[in-house]
Amino acid sequence: MGSPEPVTSASTALLTDHYELTMLASALADGTADRPCVFEVFARRLPDGRRYGVVAGTARVLDAIADFRFTDAELTMLEQTAVVDPETLAWLADYEFRGDIDGYREGDLYFPGSPILTVTGSFAEAVVLETVVLSILNHDSAIASAAARMSGAAHGRPIIEMGGRRTHEYAAVAAARASYLAGFATTSNLEAGRRYGIPTRGTVAHAFMLLHDSEEAAFRAQVSKMGADTTLLVDTYDITAGIEAAVRVAGAELGAIRIDSGDVGPLARKARDQLDSLGAKDTRIVVSGDLDEHAIAALRAEPVDAYGVGTSVVTGSGAPTAGMVYKLVEVDGRPVAKRSAHKESRGGRKHALRRHRSTGTAVEEVVWTAASGRPEPGENDLDLQIPLVREGAPVDDLPTLDDARARLRRAQVSLPWEGLKLSHGEPAIPTIFL
Amino acid sequence: MGSPEPVTSASTALLTDHYELTMLASALADGTADRPCVFEVFARRLPDGRRYGVVAGTARVLDAIADFRFTDAELTMLEQTAVVDPETLAWLADYEFRGDIDGYREGDLYFPGSPILTVTGSFAEAVVLETVVLSILNHDSAIASAAARMSGAAHGRPIIEMGGRRTHEYAAVAAARASYLAGFATTSNLEAGRRYGIPTRGTVAHAFMLLHDSEEAAFRAQVSKMGADTTLLVDTYDITAGIEAAVRVAGAELGAIRIDSGDVGPLARKARDQLDSLGAKDTRIVVSGDLDEHAIAALRAEPVDAYGVGTSVVTGSGAPTAGMVYKLVEVDGRPVAKRSAHKESRGGRKHALRRHRSTGTAVEEVVWTAASGRPEPGENDLDLQIPLVREGAPVDDLPTLDDARARLRRAQVSLPWEGLKLSHGEPAIPTIFL
Repeated sequence: MGSPEPVTSASTALLTDHYELTMLASALADGTADRPCVFEVFARRLPDGRRYGVVAGTARVLDAIADFRFTDAELTMLEQTAVVDPETLAWLADYEFRGDIDGYREGDLYFPGSPILTVTGSFAEAVVLETVVLSILNHDSAIASAAARMSGAAHGRPIIEMGGRRTHEYAAVAAARASYLAGFATTSNLEAGRRYGIPTRGTVAHAFMLLHDSEEAAFRAQVSKMGADTTLLVDTYDITAGIEAAVRVAGAELGAIRIDSGDVGPLARKARDQLDSLGAKDTRIVVSGDLDEHAIAALRAEPVDAYGVGTSVVTGSGAPTAGMVYKLVEVDGRPVAKRSAHKESRGGRKHALRRHRSTGTAVEEVVWTAASGRPEPGENDLDLQIPLVREGAPVDDLPTLDDARARLRRAQVSLPWEGLKLSHGEPAIPTIFL
Repeated sequence: MGSPEPVTSASTALLTDHYELTMLASALADGTADRPCVFEVFARRLPDGRRYGVVAGTARVLDAIADFRFTDAELTMLEQTAVVDPETLAWLADYEFRGDIDGYREGDLYFPGSPILTVTGSFAEAVVLETVVLSILNHDSAIASAAARMSGAAHGRPIIEMGGRRTHEYAAVAAARASYLAGFATTSNLEAGRRYGIPTRGTVAHAFMLLHDSEEAAFRAQVSKMGADTTLLVDTYDITAGIEAAVRVAGAELGAIRIDSGDVGPLARKARDQLDSLGAKDTRIVVSGDLDEHAIAALRAEPVDAYGVGTSVVTGSGAPTAGMVYKLVEVDGRPVAKRSAHKESRGGRKHALRRHRSTGTAVEEVVWTAASGRPEPGENDLDLQIPLVREGAPVDDLPTLDDARARLRRAQVSLPWEGLKLSHGEPAIPTIFL
């Protein structure tokens, strides 16, 4: 539609705000570019009423940093649009990140002020990463934080993520990853299957039903191709007639039925009775259609075997961004901070641990700096930051996506029970700044 | 972090829900795959209280369809994970869309039920496009719809889009495009500059101020590199002292100051007085920091020259998805529709026109089918769909991004004045279904 050809560069270097490069140019010119600096990623607060956040996207951040190179394609654009001067272009042509990164493990919880990611390097090499680092962490953590509430509400029943159509086409892929990290069982998104090895699932949509001359013809086509252990969509016309036809076609070995509309609680109860009376006692009931964590929780007593969740999870269920910031906290070893009245900032590189009772229940997040010193050790302290990158290279044996899933499950169990409530409230544990 | 290498394929074919391909496999097996079909994209309703929506993303949809090819990389993934059978793989290997697409122009308004995009082709070739088409239109239209409200509230003052850090790294690029389409002046996002030719802007962040030994040293570095016609960030420490230092360093020719925190209305007034008293009468005032359409409207009487908008626009200002659906409405020339009680559906391929008074004010959206017939012509009818693709190829002379900007400006002016109110209410004009 008149737009230029899409650019498919593997480089992430232009996923960057203009001002990163103009700052860089000024700093190169006045000799401050090489000053040793520490930048920190944290959230000033959790989304309204949320009890905890979930760290997600760290692995994607490390991939994006590895691909953060200014090739001819990027340099040409910057030259033609005169974003920066020739000296800065020459510097960018040689750019690769050579500093250190530490951070929270993916799947861990975070609270207001938690130092989720710490980037140590020269001002020049660290400042240019701000935008891409924040984009990834803000998106993925928002999705994982919402998905974790849904997983908790589902109480062990599997959830399939099927919201890709409701968000940007590549955000969809990252959302599938973040949801899986937060306990979802599967995704509908094929690209997420390819990139991250997440199991993908799907059967048919209403279009398949309407394509056929009758509901029964559609069921026959599906069962003939996919076998009786498939999921038949029974709500295109009349649900009771649909279930009857489904069992007639597939037999009592029918894998599942799906109900995608209406008041799914009563409908599931009625469907269970009907299936049982037809002898299809092992046929599962999958429900979908505008479910969020509250709707899932409300279905806990109903005979539902699995949930399909779309819009609510890919939009963060009311909190589509985690609101994290990337702040300069140390220059030449000295703490620095904004001092204007309206946004509180704490200078100095932070470290963090989480204190637990002997029962394993989390008590508080403790954040300290070199100036305050490390707190006296407790019996059940967990150090929250791990090394991620050293001298530009990812460290060995970084946690996998499955490690992140397992960590989140453990971390959720460690919260005081009020911390897992879906209702609005205070953070599950306080953050203590030393 | 243990994740597989990022895949950088230019193909969009796996930005697709698993069930599109299992439906395809069943339809290929039972001979229904070739049935001529019509799919339509529409929104059942506008986001809560919104008066109108803005169509955006159509050009990106056409690009994505052109890149929707199953290369060896995609076929291998589908084979290894057994998503579909060998016959379906062979069909996919030859896939390219050969049908027709009609739709609303980018930048036009839409209302509940407007047939925004109509895809005509065989079931097989059209059904597989559902996810990527919806992802793009749902995202881009949500952002453009929010941005249009902000542009209106800004009353001609320029807005810079600077929210890339608050959304997925590629959603950021599309959000910059959608915001520009909806009247924003510039973006901070360099990739959006490269892909779409949108003007990019930026100067410095607080990190640049903190990097330097004093505010004045930072100002000197910036002015020395960028000239006096730059924007100095004056709220790192004390705003009054900051403005004084800014004018001392740059002189009365200082281009602009930026205030990014605090109660920006009173601060802008105070800053204007101070700048004027220092002789910097032409120095502009840029404000940013958690602005949305309501905050922008509230600043209308203040001496503000430009706005920086981030989080609110890239998250759709409370409505992060447009909630559009892709529905099968015609098979073999016959209308089809779901008949369950809970989601109203209208069968048959739709056409649409917008009626206007002789003054140019829009009155209603009229949607009709072959069965109902085209309504009697009015004096000021605008046909809303245009051909976009014929036999798989984009038509010539599709509207450009600048055309879309201009169209939206005209369309907003055509609305009844209540339709431009920011408060919650009914759609600006009704949709009449014949």
